[in-house]
Amino acid sequence: MKADEKIEKIRKLMAENKIDIYIIPSSDYHQSEDVGEYFRCREFVSGFTGSAGTLLITKEKSYLWTDGRYFIQAEKEISDTEIELCRAGTEGVPTITEFLKNNLKKDEVLGFDGKTVACREMLNYKKICDEKNAKLNTEYDFVGEIWDKRPSLSKEKIFLLDIKYSGENTHNKLKRVRKAMKEEGADIHIISSLDDIAWLFNIRGRDIPCNPVVLSYAAVTEKEAFIFIDREKITEAVEEYFKENNIEIKEYSEFYDFLKNIERGKKVLLDYERINSSVYMSIPFYSEKINRTNPTQELKAVKNETEIKNIINAHIKDGTAFTKFMYWLKNNIGKEEITEISASNMIEKFRREQEGFIELSFDTISAYGSNAAMMHYTAGENSNAVLKPEGLLLVDSGGQYFQGTTDITRTIALGNINEEIKTHYTAVLRSLIALSDTKFLYGTKGYNLDAIARRPIWEIGLDYRCATGHGVGYLLNVHEGPNIFRMSAPFVMEENMITTIEPGIYIEGSHGIRIENEVLSKNWIKNEYGQFMEFIPVTFAPIDLDAVDVSMLSKREKEWLNNYHKLVFEKISPFLNQKEKEWLKIYTREI
Amino acid sequence: MKADEKIEKIRKLMAENKIDIYIIPSSDYHQSEDVGEYFRCREFVSGFTGSAGTLLITKEKSYLWTDGRYFIQAEKEISDTEIELCRAGTEGVPTITEFLKNNLKKDEVLGFDGKTVACREMLNYKKICDEKNAKLNTEYDFVGEIWDKRPSLSKEKIFLLDIKYSGENTHNKLKRVRKAMKEEGADIHIISSLDDIAWLFNIRGRDIPCNPVVLSYAAVTEKEAFIFIDREKITEAVEEYFKENNIEIKEYSEFYDFLKNIERGKKVLLDYERINSSVYMSIPFYSEKINRTNPTQELKAVKNETEIKNIINAHIKDGTAFTKFMYWLKNNIGKEEITEISASNMIEKFRREQEGFIELSFDTISAYGSNAAMMHYTAGENSNAVLKPEGLLLVDSGGQYFQGTTDITRTIALGNINEEIKTHYTAVLRSLIALSDTKFLYGTKGYNLDAIARRPIWEIGLDYRCATGHGVGYLLNVHEGPNIFRMSAPFVMEENMITTIEPGIYIEGSHGIRIENEVLSKNWIKNEYGQFMEFIPVTFAPIDLDAVDVSMLSKREKEWLNNYHKLVFEKISPFLNQKEKEWLKIYTREI
Repeated sequence: MKADEKIEKIRKLMAENKIDIYIIPSSDYHQSEDVGEYFRCREFVSGFTGSAGTLLITKEKSYLWTDGRYFIQAEKEISDTEIELCRAGTEGVPTITEFLKNNLKKDEVLGFDGKTVACREMLNYKKICDEKNAKLNTEYDFVGEIWDKRPSLSKEKIFLLDIKYSGENTHNKLKRVRKAMKEEGADIHIISSLDDIAWLFNIRGRDIPCNPVVLSYAAVTEKEAFIFIDREKITEAVEEYFKENNIEIKEYSEFYDFLKNIERGKKVLLDYERINSSVYMSIPFYSEKINRTNPTQELKAVKNETEIKNIINAHIKDGTAFTKFMYWLKNNIGKEEITEISASNMIEKFRREQEGFIELSFDTISAYGSNAAMMHYTAGENSNAVLKPEGLLLVDSGGQYFQGTTDITRTIALGNINEEIKTHYTAVLRSLIALSDTKFLYGTKGYNLDAIARRPIWEIGLDYRCATGHGVGYLLNVHEGPNIFRMSAPFVMEENMITTIEPGIYIEGSHGIRIENEVLSKNWIKNEYGQFMEFIPVTFAPIDLDAVDVSMLSKREKEWLNNYHKLVFEKISPFLNQKEKEWLKIYTREI
Repeated sequence: MKADEKIEKIRKLMAENKIDIYIIPSSDYHQSEDVGEYFRCREFVSGFTGSAGTLLITKEKSYLWTDGRYFIQAEKEISDTEIELCRAGTEGVPTITEFLKNNLKKDEVLGFDGKTVACREMLNYKKICDEKNAKLNTEYDFVGEIWDKRPSLSKEKIFLLDIKYSGENTHNKLKRVRKAMKEEGADIHIISSLDDIAWLFNIRGRDIPCNPVVLSYAAVTEKEAFIFIDREKITEAVEEYFKENNIEIKEYSEFYDFLKNIERGKKVLLDYERINSSVYMSIPFYSEKINRTNPTQELKAVKNETEIKNIINAHIKDGTAFTKFMYWLKNNIGKEEITEISASNMIEKFRREQEGFIELSFDTISAYGSNAAMMHYTAGENSNAVLKPEGLLLVDSGGQYFQGTTDITRTIALGNINEEIKTHYTAVLRSLIALSDTKFLYGTKGYNLDAIARRPIWEIGLDYRCATGHGVGYLLNVHEGPNIFRMSAPFVMEENMITTIEPGIYIEGSHGIRIENEVLSKNWIKNEYGQFMEFIPVTFAPIDLDAVDVSMLSKREKEWLNNYHKLVFEKISPFLNQKEKEWLKIYTREI
């Protein structure tokens, strides 16, 4: 069944149920960024496979919103459908909210499946409906109705994260969450974001590929804690563990009834960004709701000493895998056939050889030449480029280890590259160095720091249409908050956060360059001006000197790069064979 | 009469009138930053002569709040009084609002002269009073009651700004203001900020030293315009001009009655930051108020082509005066006695020689050695340091010309300086270059750009406790908005704004360094990422190479400095004598 056919079927259901505009987001019931197969409704209907996007269907037309990372990919994937692409954030393109303001008419009905739309978003939609005298209907999952062979919900067993990995037991974590609840005057705290639940209970699972979370909901009161989960996923050992920790197990399906029965007078702490609309609407109207970022968000973003030690070890393994891959690639390109997919298989192979490796932390992006201009390109059967001994290969990849989650990008010269590409590569490197090498006062916001990273790329009249970097979980989601470098992000960097720095240049039809390190924020000196902070890189892999125009670098930039490469050699060389080691010596040489 | 005595007298008046806490701000009736002598109540009582500060008197204690620019100066000036210094923005120091929250008690009365407190501030105080069940009294000017020889209000004549200077006539300006009023649905717009009125009506005056504004209020409707002004200030020519432009003259004292008589049903546009509390309270309660930044703020910040041409000419004159001063200083230091004050007289003398010069744009800061660590130090009889042929002299100064307002800081080595000072000087220079040499996308906010300037100074573990730069008026106030570089400033830089970049390092007891240029924002290239912008320096004076550690500069930084110095030589050398010219050649040499 083609996209247009599916859309027509949905239009029929819309007509039967008196819905005028129907929204299909990318989310599961937990506002996860990546979702299990059961939840890929937007992809099923539109054919667009990117991780972020919203499909909107009206009686006559259909629209797909996605962000700058996916413009080129989405354009390709929906090219033979009726769907119109809305490039979010581009001049003249309305947001979904603006679209609804312009198009929703009096007495019309806006519909979506309430479980797949975040509460905050639903409240925005509701406001528009109220203004327009239109109605909201959150009852129908039309995609479910037309999806014949819809995959079932994951039944994977969950596993426990030992204290030697987590560094803090659930008892303590619950204590800290309850302290935050008390400060807000909350009696009960509802959590439905999967990484928050996994962190809090020190559990992990396999329900979403690359995201070792567990499909579940949770609730915490002063004395009790509940997890709502499919009992088939629980082994005896896990059951025992929950018992010891006074965590009561309830069925996944019981959750909404539990909410409906919250006692009168209890104050409920909820994160409107991290609960779905149906959660919000299930809580009795008389209950006082306290809308606040889940306390677990801030708590888990600041890594403890055990986690930090482990994360550095995970990165040594990951850097070893990457270095072996880079050695292999540099030495075999032009000698045997290598494709984007075979290259990505090879880096996966090297990762799998590492002790403690569980799975990839996201689908490897292995993008050659102009394919790399698509920020989140995935090679497929029809687009699997053969690598030639020239130009650039961009590899953005990472692993889930018991010791942590990694996320690294390197762009590698496979042979000759032209001057323009060298200039762009060096600008991206200068951008990485600029932010990595910034000392800043505690209290400096994400938006203050972001411009520092962009400056060397702005200098040549270019920009990248995404954040400069994001927080990374611990054996959890590769994207986590609150830390993010963005032109408008007001978060304050705390000590011991792990954040990526990943500037890039993407020239449509030509090439794409991204260099990404993870950095650990640490306190530097403290004086009368306040607490200064700095970033320590925890990613260890060579930055390809073959692509660098050394004359563009300042003395301090060269020093940073030389020190970084010295560190890479120290950390990684013990795990290489003699030939790899000799190669690494050259690729981490002083410039 | 000493400060403590004055405070006791005010306490007596407070007791008689049942006021428990009394606030004395630094403002006139127009929220001017600098004020005429009549309005210097806070200075009269406390003895603190800085431009910004608020005195608060309770039954037992008194407190002076001021900001980082004035910590050292204020400490000195109030050292022999009962007043406690509150260093605003420092850890552990409450804001005035927080102080009131902690100290104002039920049924107590908070008092101040409503004409001297901005509406926005009064509303904050009112909120606290309401929360505390306390009362607000805005009737009394206690300082006026104890001030025996209070200076009178200025009677200076006003003058007109010719179209060759303003570039836009009042007719057009009123049209643009009325357009903004219409967009807000406003029937009448009340303006009480003096620079807005002066800009709108193309008039200037001498009522506040260094700020060529005119003590007045204004009101604009769709068809009418009013100015409330002391008629003694108006010449026949000006009267004629107002008539031609349909601007009705009313007495300064009639203003509050005019407000009380605003017709029922009229919507009033007001800027709560730029009207005083009494203005707000005089408008009938039934009138709908629209609180919005005065449209004139945004309009006057974007300079027109005539203004820009004039401003560059004003800076050539000002740079010529500064260069002559710097030549004189470098060649006479150690040969004759020069003091901070005689140096500042000398730069004023060179400015007065320039055609079109009217007055200084602010009191010259001429600060030697450790005095320069006080950001806004003014040499006085007791603190007039003799300059030695060693260390640094910081000179922050500017002029009011018919062609515009200037603001320039140079820090000059008078002889040997030590390595630490050289390092600090070069860090400040790198900071100036960093922001001056930034290309950025339109939409970039002040807070994005500010961190770029601070980075080189953070790099050595230092910071400056003030904004990086501010907008500058055209033959108007040397500080104007909305453009300001600050870690939290959300304004968007528009093309043709004039803003200073003035980073600094201030080491208490040792030295102070500031280098300040004014820059013009211009559009650079436009491409798929948007409109890029850049800064063009309009200040032309050598940056003292004697204080620069060239080894700290990158190649690009050296290029910027060399290009800048080449420009300085081109613009200024035609106005110098042979010896000065030869000297400038050396001081603008390539490094």
